[in-house]
Amino acid sequence: MFISESLFGEVMILAKASIDKIIRKAGAARVSSEAALRLAQVLEDEGVEIAKEAVELAEHAGRKTVKREDIRMVLEQ
Amino acid sequence: MFISESLFGEVMILAKASIDKIIRKAGAARVSSEAALRLAQVLEDEGVEIAKEAVELAEHAGRKTVKREDIRMVLEQ
Repeated sequence: MFISESLFGEVMILAKASIDKIIRKAGAARVSSEAALRLAQVLEDEGVEIAKEAVELAEHAGRKTVKREDIRMVLEQ
Repeated sequence: MFISESLFGEVMILAKASIDKIIRKAGAARVSSEAALRLAQVLEDEGVEIAKEAVELAEHAGRKTVKREDIRMVLEQ
């Protein structure tokens, strides 16, 4: 695994290389490093927000495991 | 790099292992494989959507390189 740092020096989970690929998949010929890092941050932050709500829903259902139905319910809200 | 397949068998860019980590960062004790795949899909789809608009903005500015300012402008819309 690669370790990415955000534009503010935080260690990130999403690899910059993956986000670069996503931007190229969208049609980019070239991608700046900072563009990939910025989008990585956005997606990681959004992922954590969705996941926090899913964790609450799992706990509410008496489970320790976050399941697909928890993610789905967050997205339906 | 790991290769993930979506719940519908598509090859995905975001690794399931990374999204599992994001869900644990949000407080999950355990995460089902399908939950991680579902969230990976959501984030990858959103990443592509944001990136498509950023590619258009870069082209509009006469650039072949997607820069951080393109991502920022999409997020401000």
